[in-house]
Amino acid sequence: MGETCGLKGLGGLKILVAGAGALGCLYAGLLASQGHHLYLLGRKPLVEAVEKNGLKIRGLISLDVKVEAAVENPAQLKEEAFNLILLTVKAYQAAEAASSLTSLPAGKIPLVCLQNGLGVEEEVKKAVGNRFTVLRGVSFMGAYVEKPGLVRCTGLSSTLLEEPPPEALPPLTEMLGSLKAYGLEADFKPQIREVVWEKTLVNAGINPFGAITGLKNGQLLEVPQLREAIAETVEEGWKVASKLGIAFSRNPVKLTFKVAEATAENYNSMLQDLKAGRRTEIDYINGAIARFGEETGVATPLNRLLTSLIKGLEAERKLVEI
Amino acid sequence: MGETCGLKGLGGLKILVAGAGALGCLYAGLLASQGHHLYLLGRKPLVEAVEKNGLKIRGLISLDVKVEAAVENPAQLKEEAFNLILLTVKAYQAAEAASSLTSLPAGKIPLVCLQNGLGVEEEVKKAVGNRFTVLRGVSFMGAYVEKPGLVRCTGLSSTLLEEPPPEALPPLTEMLGSLKAYGLEADFKPQIREVVWEKTLVNAGINPFGAITGLKNGQLLEVPQLREAIAETVEEGWKVASKLGIAFSRNPVKLTFKVAEATAENYNSMLQDLKAGRRTEIDYINGAIARFGEETGVATPLNRLLTSLIKGLEAERKLVEI
Repeated sequence: MGETCGLKGLGGLKILVAGAGALGCLYAGLLASQGHHLYLLGRKPLVEAVEKNGLKIRGLISLDVKVEAAVENPAQLKEEAFNLILLTVKAYQAAEAASSLTSLPAGKIPLVCLQNGLGVEEEVKKAVGNRFTVLRGVSFMGAYVEKPGLVRCTGLSSTLLEEPPPEALPPLTEMLGSLKAYGLEADFKPQIREVVWEKTLVNAGINPFGAITGLKNGQLLEVPQLREAIAETVEEGWKVASKLGIAFSRNPVKLTFKVAEATAENYNSMLQDLKAGRRTEIDYINGAIARFGEETGVATPLNRLLTSLIKGLEAERKLVEI
Repeated sequence: MGETCGLKGLGGLKILVAGAGALGCLYAGLLASQGHHLYLLGRKPLVEAVEKNGLKIRGLISLDVKVEAAVENPAQLKEEAFNLILLTVKAYQAAEAASSLTSLPAGKIPLVCLQNGLGVEEEVKKAVGNRFTVLRGVSFMGAYVEKPGLVRCTGLSSTLLEEPPPEALPPLTEMLGSLKAYGLEADFKPQIREVVWEKTLVNAGINPFGAITGLKNGQLLEVPQLREAIAETVEEGWKVASKLGIAFSRNPVKLTFKVAEATAENYNSMLQDLKAGRRTEIDYINGAIARFGEETGVATPLNRLLTSLIKGLEAERKLVEI
């Protein structure tokens, strides 16, 4: 791990995972297994389960994870000087969750936003000012919470981070090195915005369609009208991205179909959110495409309607911010 | 009833209700109560229930209806010379159901299409040629089947018919007269196309939104994004209608909101169809608006997407033509 072995030599990084949901727990497990010191900020059931039985990752990998602490309230961490924070709450909770961390010991700690969707890191930056070095990350891992303290890993894949300012380089390089040591793709990515948009376009083309119809990702492509509507929804977002100067190395429509085929048997996360009574991330996916469309003068009627319909489904389930 | 008392004097009309669902049974009840001879063509459970216990209408009115016959197959009616046929099957069944009636005794009997949506009577005309005098009707009644043979009337309102050719005038005038005698609005309407489109725009703005979100008609208006999307969906159809030379005496968007408010506690019929495992009439509502939009060069992205999503919901429920 070259340049970062100094830190590693000091016994690994102190890492706070703020948002111990499925993805946060998966990263905590992977990084703890590589000798880092993990602290989880999560909800009561998770905290209690971890205190009692520890954290278990199952599925594609099997890890029994030892964490330093699992707490509900950031105030319980106020003596800890972290090297790195992974912000893994839902997109709509990110700004508020990041704000709550400003009581941590001073220091421009790197804070990596690993949410789905567009505009999260801007909201977080606005919320925390210069208190943290806020960075965009994109995770292609898949996981879900089977029960508190038990996370099932369904996808082991790459982690990409925007290139950080020099002062944030050592801990981030070390973290990526640990993921690489686990055999995973993990890198800095100069064009992170392209990656974020590409993933968002795929989500925009799959998630609301699955959430509205209840169909699995693969089934969506079998209904000709849906296949066409998915393509047009992605194309709207593609036009917005082009207007913003973002170019893609792959055709986003074809990529969306490819992802839906590769995950044919999955019910997407937005459908899972609604079924579990959770608010969705629609505002940061199709809703964000519509907002950027308005700003750039690109019509996005399909993304807007999909956003409105998901809002209706959330209203029907009486879901407010969790 | 003036000019038609001659027919009435002969003992009332022989009327076939082809499609003894909620609406068909309601009309059968109203017309039987005025001395006409009603024949029901329906499914097995309805036929068996009516043979055993007769037909009962409850709700806004209470009628114990005596019908001449209730049959499953038009062949069982081949000796009957009807004065009038009310076609009350679902829009997507209309053409096939009308075709099956061509085995009835010859004679250019008036056949009134009372379906929701656009284009039904054209399909029926194509299916039956000159065998019947096919006419458009619009019903503003509301009813649902509580169980086979028991229909609950939730809305008693007007019945409008297109102006018929002279030979069809007597039985239709008599039927409308009987509805009027019951205290209901019932008339010929020179601009029936305007009425059909107006009702379709209202349905296009309410039905798929309720069917997708599960919200009651009134709740749809409480979600700001849905209210806006409903208005835009109706506006698309309004533009298509204008292009076809159809003008409305009322603002269709305001009318849609008014209808949703007046039926605030109702779950709309498309949602009821999906819940009951029935195919919806989307192809004749938003789907038809999209088709006419394509023909007239008016963009209808919202109506098209709503149609695709309802197709997805039908696919998820494995609904094929019933």
